Amino acid sequence: MVMIKQAEGQKKSWTTRLDAKKKRIESVKGLVEGILIPTEHIVDAMEKLIRPGDRVVMEGNNQKQASFLSEALAQINPKKVHDLHMIMSSISRPEHLDLFEKGIAKKVDFAYAGPQSLRMAQMLEDGKLTMGEIHTYIELYGRLFIDLIPSVALVAADKADRNGNLYTGPNTEETPTLVEAAAFRDGIVIAQVNELLDELPRVDVPGSWIDFIVVADQPYELEPLFTRDPRHITDIQVLQAMTVIRGIYEKHQVQSLNHGIGYNTAAIELLLPTYGESLGLKGKICKHWALNPHPTLIPAIESGWVESVHCFGGEVGMEKYVAARRDVFFTGRDGSLRSNRTLCQMAGQYAVDLFIGSTLQLDHDGNSSTVTRGRLTGYGGAPNMGHNPGGRRHSTPAWLNMMTSEDPLAYGKKLVVQVVETFQAGNKPVFVESLDAIDVKKDSGLAIAPVMIYGDDVTHVVTEEGIAYLYKTDSMEKRREALSAVAGVTSVGLKHDSAKTAELRREGLIALPEDLQIRRTDAKRSLLAAKSVEEIVEWSEGLYEPPSKFKSW
Amino acid sequence: MVMIKQAEGQKKSWTTRLDAKKKRIESVKGLVEGILIPTEHIVDAMEKLIRPGDRVVMEGNNQKQASFLSEALAQINPKKVHDLHMIMSSISRPEHLDLFEKGIAKKVDFAYAGPQSLRMAQMLEDGKLTMGEIHTYIELYGRLFIDLIPSVALVAADKADRNGNLYTGPNTEETPTLVEAAAFRDGIVIAQVNELLDELPRVDVPGSWIDFIVVADQPYELEPLFTRDPRHITDIQVLQAMTVIRGIYEKHQVQSLNHGIGYNTAAIELLLPTYGESLGLKGKICKHWALNPHPTLIPAIESGWVESVHCFGGEVGMEKYVAARRDVFFTGRDGSLRSNRTLCQMAGQYAVDLFIGSTLQLDHDGNSSTVTRGRLTGYGGAPNMGHNPGGRRHSTPAWLNMMTSEDPLAYGKKLVVQVVETFQAGNKPVFVESLDAIDVKKDSGLAIAPVMIYGDDVTHVVTEEGIAYLYKTDSMEKRREALSAVAGVTSVGLKHDSAKTAELRREGLIALPEDLQIRRTDAKRSLLAAKSVEEIVEWSEGLYEPPSKFKSW
Repeated sequence: MVMIKQAEGQKKSWTTRLDAKKKRIESVKGLVEGILIPTEHIVDAMEKLIRPGDRVVMEGNNQKQASFLSEALAQINPKKVHDLHMIMSSISRPEHLDLFEKGIAKKVDFAYAGPQSLRMAQMLEDGKLTMGEIHTYIELYGRLFIDLIPSVALVAADKADRNGNLYTGPNTEETPTLVEAAAFRDGIVIAQVNELLDELPRVDVPGSWIDFIVVADQPYELEPLFTRDPRHITDIQVLQAMTVIRGIYEKHQVQSLNHGIGYNTAAIELLLPTYGESLGLKGKICKHWALNPHPTLIPAIESGWVESVHCFGGEVGMEKYVAARRDVFFTGRDGSLRSNRTLCQMAGQYAVDLFIGSTLQLDHDGNSSTVTRGRLTGYGGAPNMGHNPGGRRHSTPAWLNMMTSEDPLAYGKKLVVQVVETFQAGNKPVFVESLDAIDVKKDSGLAIAPVMIYGDDVTHVVTEEGIAYLYKTDSMEKRREALSAVAGVTSVGLKHDSAKTAELRREGLIALPEDLQIRRTDAKRSLLAAKSVEEIVEWSEGLYEPPSKFKSW
Repeated sequence: MVMIKQAEGQKKSWTTRLDAKKKRIESVKGLVEGILIPTEHIVDAMEKLIRPGDRVVMEGNNQKQASFLSEALAQINPKKVHDLHMIMSSISRPEHLDLFEKGIAKKVDFAYAGPQSLRMAQMLEDGKLTMGEIHTYIELYGRLFIDLIPSVALVAADKADRNGNLYTGPNTEETPTLVEAAAFRDGIVIAQVNELLDELPRVDVPGSWIDFIVVADQPYELEPLFTRDPRHITDIQVLQAMTVIRGIYEKHQVQSLNHGIGYNTAAIELLLPTYGESLGLKGKICKHWALNPHPTLIPAIESGWVESVHCFGGEVGMEKYVAARRDVFFTGRDGSLRSNRTLCQMAGQYAVDLFIGSTLQLDHDGNSSTVTRGRLTGYGGAPNMGHNPGGRRHSTPAWLNMMTSEDPLAYGKKLVVQVVETFQAGNKPVFVESLDAIDVKKDSGLAIAPVMIYGDDVTHVVTEEGIAYLYKTDSMEKRREALSAVAGVTSVGLKHDSAKTAELRREGLIALPEDLQIRRTDAKRSLLAAKSVEEIVEWSEGLYEPPSKFKSW
């Protein structure tokens, strides 16, 4: 037996993480009351509980932010705590980057940096920040259990009891996953809460996973990101929505799906009870959703289209509506929504027929990106849901419908749809010869170009011109022809030989609205089941309570 | 505003699930004591709590089984409860299929049916069972939140308290995910426990998610599936393990990985502290693992190779060892392992450099399958971890090392390795012209052939002949040449023109052991850090307590 072991005298410790944790907890004895950190002592406590070089995972995604803790972290003395390695789903708030300016933090691994993307790119250029990697959400969560195991987790919940049990209510989001990674690896878990209660409506995260609770000076930040005011939906978006309903959802029998936050998809949601109903599609398509509680889905729910919705997070103002529609949503015993970003991303990857999204740029091969020069926006959830999951083995009618080969080993495909107008506002073409992402890669020293969705995964591209059925093309040449045919007067579109249009239509590689029996003149906002937020409130029987910025009455 | 609503008089109910749940709970009032179902009343209680046609998710994977509940379910009166739609990770126990023989259940969706695969195929042929779909684990879990939302969840835990809080100990496994799907959709959750306690060592699932607890008449079944006795490792497996360490792990700097249950991978684990050490690779490769607590990893852990291990489940006998090595494993405050099948599969998909596995058949394009005629084994976790996750955006040295294109949008790839001997025991060739899966598809009426791992995803194939570097081949022809070159004297191997071997070696498309400076004569069992279970126990300082079937002393 070959045995390479250390000598008895220098016996290796296997509890260094636990010992460090105990020491840290010991060091705040005078500051805390049991597990409770008094609100005014949070900065002091953090200076003792967090050590230089720590890996700190901080809750904050596109909606919910541990804002009290991030503000406190930005106030700690960089002489005491510095060089932190931050892990954050989203870099959303100014103090997230102040951490780096001040030298408290040094390196960051993240998924999305929309609101701070410009400043972030600048700081990277100025050497004030070390880039880790950019991820899709669950890829980042996965690394928390492999090679980015956190020493500290800073999370947010609505309420806690004195045993540390957390109630996250509708916004459970990523809290349980971040806590699990730290709590079960002898990390320190600090949760900010809006309120301390004797008894919780339900427990979302068990108290034995939490080390410290602090009552925040104000409720955590919550962004109503998935609220789209129907007033801003245009006739062109109505046309595209009709095209998608007929030419994709009906054609392929799409029963389960995810929608993003665009006006395009809001238009689809609002056409189901009108245009969809007129086609006799109720009960046949769009039954199961991986989706945040979109207000624009309310008319479809009220009209009986929707069997189930599982949510990544909550949506401000939708609390009472969701609680009153518990046959449709996942709710706890208290009646309020239970969301779960990890599980919903997993379901959105593996268990739905279709992902539909939009983008700022599409190249001739169908690759798309939302990064533009000087901005490091990152990805969020789109790469996860907008690709064909190679591990999927179950079939559905829509998935099988993507099979174009007679090979005995052929299998289906997830539908990945890009809906764009050929030009963005400001006359910027969406179809481009080369993605800005390639320049961003060079400028930022990234290992790969930040592509949101790869062309290989895209099955359909929809524009105001029509649909390109990319999944049916059997060569790169045909694929490009189909894309050009719907790319309007962009440079990609101008490559189209209009003599080929008829052939592409005949082969079913593209469809124009008229091929789908859609008259362009019918595509009017008047078709929307609700044309304003006020009308959505009416559909909801007053249960939906929109944030004031969406109210005009 | 177009508003299609029902008339006031027939107002739709949105609480049908909650109402049904309340009624069911009401119906067992006389039988239960609060949330406690007396052991002897379990069958009676199930006959009231479960209704005909229910979707029932039952815990049971390749290791942990809710065996008391499955036995009880098989005893209920099919006149009272019938036509259940079962959702099960694994069809493992005889009563799992008795349910269908007796008419209690009708349809099944599952991930794996190894132990019952023969009987299952027969029952399907006899029309005694309706097949749903076959899944990889987290694909099935995903559907629990989309279109397979359960009405009832039957799960197993070690201990519960009187508030229903569950302690799952090292075998947390899939319990929290199955419970979450039912509990937050007004389903009924019944947990069998080995023991009822006043105070739990820790809480793994909160009590407010659980409806009923029943103390089982005996502990739930637990299979020590990941224990491989080094005595059964052959010299050929040692050779293959050396080849993998040099020709893949070292070459591509593989730092994070998953290993399956084979003797091939056990050999690799046992060579790290000997052969790996001699190559100076400690700290450079194999640092982070998504892996059950394999006893064969103990010598590598003790020698300081392993920084972290996240586990799908536990392993019988490894409890004390894991608790004593908490710097390496995920453990709770009580010191025992916290596993999580969902999170570990997610991490194993998205956050590791490499998956390595074995198979029973490989075709000329690298497609592999473990199904053989007359057996419906299903998939387990291999399709999930053994594919290139298209949503991944972060890079690591190994991942980038798979890039072979100069395209500005090129990206890396997960390493997916198949290690096989060219012939199985009984002289059955592993390399075949056509997979049996194709016949099984026809025989069973499956929508697609049950392929475990698709050739497109496979980057390396390792046999006793050498390594085929499939990721480097730029045409199907080259790919086949490389595969043939390592396929020995199987029919696929005999297609190899041995004149081409030198060219393939020169191009780096294959490597023979001698190209890796490995002498076949060095590949001896004596290189293994432990050659028996007894020696593993010795390495563990007596902390590993193997089940008696692995003991010879």
